Amino acid sequence: MKVLVIGAAGMIGRKLVEAMLEKGTLRGRKISDILAFDVVEASFENATDIKITTVSGEFSEPDQAAKLVADKPDVIFHLAAIVSGEAETDFDKGYRINLAAVQYLFDAIRQQNYMPRVVYASSIAVFGAPFDDPIRDDFHLTPLTSYGTQKAIGELLLADYTRKGIFDGIGLRFPTIVVRPGKPNLAASSFFSNIIREPLAGKEAILPVSKDVKHWMASPKSAAGFCIHAAEIDGEKVGPRRNLTLPGIAATVGEMIDALGRIAGQQVVDLIREEPDEAVTTIVGNWPREFDASRAISLGFTCESSFDEIVQAHIDDMNEGA
Amino acid sequence: MKVLVIGAAGMIGRKLVEAMLEKGTLRGRKISDILAFDVVEASFENATDIKITTVSGEFSEPDQAAKLVADKPDVIFHLAAIVSGEAETDFDKGYRINLAAVQYLFDAIRQQNYMPRVVYASSIAVFGAPFDDPIRDDFHLTPLTSYGTQKAIGELLLADYTRKGIFDGIGLRFPTIVVRPGKPNLAASSFFSNIIREPLAGKEAILPVSKDVKHWMASPKSAAGFCIHAAEIDGEKVGPRRNLTLPGIAATVGEMIDALGRIAGQQVVDLIREEPDEAVTTIVGNWPREFDASRAISLGFTCESSFDEIVQAHIDDMNEGA
Repeated sequence: MKVLVIGAAGMIGRKLVEAMLEKGTLRGRKISDILAFDVVEASFENATDIKITTVSGEFSEPDQAAKLVADKPDVIFHLAAIVSGEAETDFDKGYRINLAAVQYLFDAIRQQNYMPRVVYASSIAVFGAPFDDPIRDDFHLTPLTSYGTQKAIGELLLADYTRKGIFDGIGLRFPTIVVRPGKPNLAASSFFSNIIREPLAGKEAILPVSKDVKHWMASPKSAAGFCIHAAEIDGEKVGPRRNLTLPGIAATVGEMIDALGRIAGQQVVDLIREEPDEAVTTIVGNWPREFDASRAISLGFTCESSFDEIVQAHIDDMNEGA
Repeated sequence: MKVLVIGAAGMIGRKLVEAMLEKGTLRGRKISDILAFDVVEASFENATDIKITTVSGEFSEPDQAAKLVADKPDVIFHLAAIVSGEAETDFDKGYRINLAAVQYLFDAIRQQNYMPRVVYASSIAVFGAPFDDPIRDDFHLTPLTSYGTQKAIGELLLADYTRKGIFDGIGLRFPTIVVRPGKPNLAASSFFSNIIREPLAGKEAILPVSKDVKHWMASPKSAAGFCIHAAEIDGEKVGPRRNLTLPGIAATVGEMIDALGRIAGQQVVDLIREEPDEAVTTIVGNWPREFDASRAISLGFTCESSFDEIVQAHIDDMNEGA
């Protein structure tokens, strides 16, 4: 069983490789090789007999994808993307990485003439306001960002290439992943992680929106689990609609903070400082809040059952890292 | 007012150019030039002072689109496509013409750095079974053909390029156009036109499906009218959802034949021979039957109000041609 991870140095990519090293098998077969690709070289602690090859390069170069699939990997995880904010400010780069490179990859697989499972990271950004509440799996695709447009196009290509028997694709619309490790960044969604991660590290965190803002989230551990389950499920059961809205936890900021208090105590919660930001409030107001993920759930995808578990998953990650 | 028609030699393209010659204006301004492009050279009878330039070429060549928009046409109609059947059998050609060439066109407009109205011919093939009945404008995009996939991707690109202010696009999901002129062809949908056109020309026509099959149709004249209206409407009123399911007539084959009888008499109807074809019946069974086009109607798009009018439109066309 050979596995290719495109975007292996990212948060989900790293968690996925670590989870595969721990699990050792995929689709009932022993994993022999992991080819870990990203624009920067990833490195992994590996005490197993699985061979990890790390390669760095520019995914949007026309021949890069062909090199990556030359060995006919049995499972291909495509997790590489220019994120929402950057795709919006750099139109060319967004379309180059998030669309052209996806087409190169899918066509490179076609040239190899075999039938791998392809797991494609899509996003809830394929949906745009006004929304139903909750948003069903079959809500129409109305992205309001270039990133969401590129992901929606990738979903359509994935379904058509799968229908034509070029590969066996599953597209995953990830919830917002919380708690992201690392430092606060400038993304509008950053505070969803900051208000948990920073206080747990003894630092102050800014809350720029009101406590009744609701969002759709899952942990990094669940994200890796989604990828592995998508690699393993029976494609026949999925049918022609290959793109799935994944389960998550719909929680308000107030509920998130309550969970933090239950687990870590009031002195941790006290490190959150409310500093309303109108710009962030407006952006977040256009984001989806809650999904009906019953299709993915019926196909066996699982995540946390409460935000408490998401907080606990981060504390476990902190302790492992320590 | 300079107009570019890509796909000018096709059925809708020809009708559109003729309608513009008759109307003389677009968006309240006198039409000065029509650049009529297709893979074959089109020719038009023109008694007006509008200058028509016909150009033939391969639309999927990377520099073709740039040449076509070099003069900054104010309105661009993009009607060129590989049809459904051919896009399904020739995967590369379908993606080259129906996707890559669309991207070349949109990017060529971006290079010119101006703001034309772009009218993009999409299709009800962006929807795939199982359907709601009727299918709303915001039914999810689930194409089950490569053609429908390519059209859905064009819709997404059109919306994103419009949102980014690169051009002002309107996408039109055409009903099946009936009665098509010319000879019967091998398309599965061919019989919808054949059973009207052939008997009216004194020839026998084969009906391969049962009379209770329902379909969504408009005349060639309405198709040209949709294009012109799409060129003229206020983009502000359309909002971010740029792709519209157009109005049509939902009629069963039985209702179509009744209309033919009312207008042309029983001896014409008697030329229709029922010869059930299981393959055609299966294909047509997966096609959408009826749409809720209330959004396009509220934006002023109109078509026939009964199938009788569609039959009459064809008789008028026959008489004009004679």
